[in-house]
Amino acid sequence: MHTIDNCIVVVTDIFRATSCMVTGLAYGVGSITPVATVEECMDLQQKGYIAAAERNAMKVEGFELDNSPFSYMDERLVGANIAMTTTNGTLSITKAKSAAVKVLVGAFLNLGAVANHLRSQPYDVLILCAGWKGRVNLEDTLYAGALVNALKDTYIIAEDSALLAARAYEQAQSDLLGYVSTSSHVRRLQRLGIHKDIAYCLQHDLYDVVPVLRGSTLVPM
Amino acid sequence: MHTIDNCIVVVTDIFRATSCMVTGLAYGVGSITPVATVEECMDLQQKGYIAAAERNAMKVEGFELDNSPFSYMDERLVGANIAMTTTNGTLSITKAKSAAVKVLVGAFLNLGAVANHLRSQPYDVLILCAGWKGRVNLEDTLYAGALVNALKDTYIIAEDSALLAARAYEQAQSDLLGYVSTSSHVRRLQRLGIHKDIAYCLQHDLYDVVPVLRGSTLVPM
Repeated sequence: MHTIDNCIVVVTDIFRATSCMVTGLAYGVGSITPVATVEECMDLQQKGYIAAAERNAMKVEGFELDNSPFSYMDERLVGANIAMTTTNGTLSITKAKSAAVKVLVGAFLNLGAVANHLRSQPYDVLILCAGWKGRVNLEDTLYAGALVNALKDTYIIAEDSALLAARAYEQAQSDLLGYVSTSSHVRRLQRLGIHKDIAYCLQHDLYDVVPVLRGSTLVPM
Repeated sequence: MHTIDNCIVVVTDIFRATSCMVTGLAYGVGSITPVATVEECMDLQQKGYIAAAERNAMKVEGFELDNSPFSYMDERLVGANIAMTTTNGTLSITKAKSAAVKVLVGAFLNLGAVANHLRSQPYDVLILCAGWKGRVNLEDTLYAGALVNALKDTYIIAEDSALLAARAYEQAQSDLLGYVSTSSHVRRLQRLGIHKDIAYCLQHDLYDVVPVLRGSTLVPM
C-alpha cells in the first residue's frame, strides 16, 4: 500500500487550471498562489496580488483574471504574483500540500518536462486528478494515462486506476480532441464557447516549465 | 447531478463476491444475507445460517464457505440461507442499501439478465464497483463498462467514469482474461492459485438470475 507521505504528487486539472498555471509560469509570471476559496483569493488581491477566480467555468466578478490560458500570455503579468482559485484544481493542490513530499503541477503542455524530472526522483508518484466536483473526468484521466505511459520504463504501475488511465490514453492519443468531445465537462465548456482553450490545453510539450509548490506558492522549478 | 436516492444501484465485485452470489442463487440457494463484519456473520451463523467469511481473498477460520464460486454449486446449499461477509463486496452492498431505490447484484455471469431488467426501469442506474479496499480495480471497472455498453441504447451516459469504463471494456472484450491479468488483484489471486475462479468469473451470461436486496437479504428477483 502506497501512502501519500512518500509521494511526489502531480496535480492536474487540464480544463483549465493547471494548463493556465503552466502557461503563466512559462510566460514569465513570478508566482501563482493557489487558494481554496474566493475569500482567500480576495484577501491576497487586497495585498497586491493579481487575482484569478473561477467557479463553474466562469470568472467571478471583481477579479482581474479568468481561467483561460490565453489570459496568461500577457506581458503585463511578467514577474507578477498571482492568486488563483478554481472550482477543482486549486482545491486539489491545497489538499495535497500538507502530506506530500513535493507537489508539482502537470498538464499536457509540460508533460515531458514533468516526466523528465520524475525519472530521477527516489519517491512514489501519485497523480491527483482534480476531476469535476469530486467526480472522475475524462481529460484529467487521460493526462494521468499519458504521464503513466511516459514513466512506464522507470516506475512500476502499482494501482489499477493508473493502468486503466494508461490504456485510455493509448486508445485516445491519436485523436485526443475527438475522444474528449464526449465528456461532460467538455460539453459544458463548449456551451461556454471555449473551443480554442480546449484545443490548446490538449497540446503536448509546448513548455519545459515544471511548477513546484514552495510553501503555499507555485514557482518554476 | 444524479443522486443515489433516484438510483437503482448495481453492486459488483467480480473477484469474487458477486460472482459467488449469482452462482449460488442460480444453483438454488434460498437467500444470501451480506453483512459488513465477521462478527455479524458469526451471529447469523449461530442463528442457523450457513456462513461464508472471506478476508484478503482467504476463508476466515470457523466458517463453512469460502469465496470460490465453485463452492456455491453444491446441492446441500439448495434452499439454504447463507450469511456472507467479504473484504469489499458485501460492504458495498450494505452501504448502498439505505439510500438506493433498489440494490441488485451484478457479475459477468448474469450481465444480460441485469441489463434486461434495467431497460424497463424508470430510474437512474449507478454501478457500484466494490474495488479493492477503497481503490479502483480493473475487473469491476470492466464489468461496469460491459453493463454501460449493454444499456447504451436505453440510457444516457451521465458520468465520465461510466464513459471510461465503457471504453475500457470495448478495448478488453476480445481477451478479458489477458487484459485483467495485468491487474494487481488478479496477481494477488493468482499467487493464491485461483486461476480457475478467475476464468469462470469472466464468463458472460451463464445465468438468468437477478439477485435483488429485499430488506437485508438477497433473493432471486
